[in-house]
Amino acid sequence: MSETPDAVLRLLLDGRPRTRAELIDSSGLARSTVTARIESLLASGLVVPSGEAASTGGRPPGRFRLNPMARLILAADVGATHLSVALTDLTGAIVARSTTPLNIAEGPEIVLAEVVRTGQSLLKKAGRSLADLAGTGVGLPGPVEHSTGRPNHPPIMPGWDSYDVAERLSRELPGPVLVDNDVNIMALGEHATEYADVEHLLFVKVATGIGAGVISGGRLHRGAQGAAGDIGHIQTPGHTELCRCGNVGCLEAVASAAAIASRLNVRGSQDIIELVRAGNTAATTAVRQAGREIGTVLAAAVSLLNPSVLVIGGSLSQAGDNLLAGLRESIYSRSLPLATKDLRIVPSRSGPDAPLRGAAVLVQRQLLG
Amino acid sequence: MSETPDAVLRLLLDGRPRTRAELIDSSGLARSTVTARIESLLASGLVVPSGEAASTGGRPPGRFRLNPMARLILAADVGATHLSVALTDLTGAIVARSTTPLNIAEGPEIVLAEVVRTGQSLLKKAGRSLADLAGTGVGLPGPVEHSTGRPNHPPIMPGWDSYDVAERLSRELPGPVLVDNDVNIMALGEHATEYADVEHLLFVKVATGIGAGVISGGRLHRGAQGAAGDIGHIQTPGHTELCRCGNVGCLEAVASAAAIASRLNVRGSQDIIELVRAGNTAATTAVRQAGREIGTVLAAAVSLLNPSVLVIGGSLSQAGDNLLAGLRESIYSRSLPLATKDLRIVPSRSGPDAPLRGAAVLVQRQLLG
Repeated sequence: MSETPDAVLRLLLDGRPRTRAELIDSSGLARSTVTARIESLLASGLVVPSGEAASTGGRPPGRFRLNPMARLILAADVGATHLSVALTDLTGAIVARSTTPLNIAEGPEIVLAEVVRTGQSLLKKAGRSLADLAGTGVGLPGPVEHSTGRPNHPPIMPGWDSYDVAERLSRELPGPVLVDNDVNIMALGEHATEYADVEHLLFVKVATGIGAGVISGGRLHRGAQGAAGDIGHIQTPGHTELCRCGNVGCLEAVASAAAIASRLNVRGSQDIIELVRAGNTAATTAVRQAGREIGTVLAAAVSLLNPSVLVIGGSLSQAGDNLLAGLRESIYSRSLPLATKDLRIVPSRSGPDAPLRGAAVLVQRQLLG
Repeated sequence: MSETPDAVLRLLLDGRPRTRAELIDSSGLARSTVTARIESLLASGLVVPSGEAASTGGRPPGRFRLNPMARLILAADVGATHLSVALTDLTGAIVARSTTPLNIAEGPEIVLAEVVRTGQSLLKKAGRSLADLAGTGVGLPGPVEHSTGRPNHPPIMPGWDSYDVAERLSRELPGPVLVDNDVNIMALGEHATEYADVEHLLFVKVATGIGAGVISGGRLHRGAQGAAGDIGHIQTPGHTELCRCGNVGCLEAVASAAAIASRLNVRGSQDIIELVRAGNTAATTAVRQAGREIGTVLAAAVSLLNPSVLVIGGSLSQAGDNLLAGLRESIYSRSLPLATKDLRIVPSRSGPDAPLRGAAVLVQRQLLG
């Protein structure tokens, strides 16, 4: 077997038509290998002839291009209290979507049945069928052992621990099923859509919980057990607040939307955002201070990883500039000049699309290597 | 050009002889490409015929293997007060070495002239010449912008800031010259020699300074400016010691060998190690406490990166089990169960060879991709 079995399809993913000679040249594969691969891709409809040479009749076509709608990817973002499902084409562009309220504590059987039902409904509306699915990507709001696709002691997902999500969905959906945690798929989505050329990016989600996704050398860094990026339980210097994990002073217990909401006596992110927008001083101060605390931990992450882009996403990132101002204050005061001289600290651009785009990226990477 | 120009040579690096068919199969390259590459490697002497088929006279040989001594790699580890230089074969195995006291504050002209002189002397003793050099790898005790090979505001290297180390050495040495910081080359060396199959490894050097080298997905993670791993100036919770960088509470100001030595009124690592070995309680307590402080910062790094191996190297790692005991105490008390369930926290095995082996790896990676 070749080291790069899907090099031909991967080369065509940018949408640009290429000749056989170009595909041989760029892939470094043998002519016979490329020819066989093109034949197989034409037969499956994933690739189609392209360009003027196709109109000359009997001669074989000169160029080939990806047919992005030949197959669809099912992307699901399972949140604590919502379910978003989308269909994307093979380039990851969203072609249909649906979001419904759903409590993850209903358990995997009910939630995953709803993923399948919504996927089938979206396919039907698009005039397509299950047979058109290339694969399914799922994001879950807790730690996932990526190699097995099973949640690993997820704190806010009762009934999900070690549940075989991929196996359950594979019973009804064709193609590979890939599962990862929500922050990793947000990082993948933000990277793929907004920063595809950036080698080193750190994505931080600030919401009810706090977590990070690490892009290293253009690839998601998952770590040995898929637990990389779990920064919510790093100790915040000078704090002793009790955390739901059983430890004290965890970043999440100090600076998450849940921690701020509890301090302000409101329910969550949305209330905090409204108070900040209304100019409430206590809320503004609390968000800025949370930014400083998160920034202390991120300063350490910046020193360790030296990313060129630090993206702040999650619901609390919509609370105006106060969060980022606090973050920048800590990071610039605590990091070495070399690590911050070209560092961009920016709010998420892809917003609510990020997890769906990222779930599609999981499938693309699986199919294309 | 192929995406994998040196795939043939890279495949042979493990020393196992392979047939042309095996090389075509494993590389995925076209037969004509592999044949041309083998011819060129045979002509240069880097690869030689191997096995029984070579003795059958006129027929082309059946197998090919790397000739590890065909070319040599010059590896230099420039420390604050010493210079180590080695010759390695193409597999990175050290074949000759020399270590001399040398103060880095003498400046780049004097130090690099000594690197060249020592390299020439080692080559002469080995009966080889400059023409036999495949390339040179250099480790420096400060931040290096890897893309340019220039030190970037190195705190303990007066006269070296922005100095073009690669250009200076290239004036006298053939082949590529690669420059990186000392902790990165220690991480590369430890990984290549002891943990080649480990995907995610964190190497921490505890000496006069404190720094880390991050291996992610089997590759060194250098970050955007090559500053990744610079953990010596992360804030240690609860500390306000003044650091030479101008900030307060930096890990290096709290828990480095320099900080402990100053507290114990001795000169450095060697004195501390002797006191610990002699059973001095103040020294033992100080080293264990330093382990706890370093562990607090590493607990955060473990949460962020989820490595499977955490290697502790550098001079202070020779101070018995106290440093590791303190480290383990903090890391296990502050990390989530998933990130530590299979984590190995171990002392460096490759010891003083690590930086030289790592400097050789820099050249291997450059030559072989």
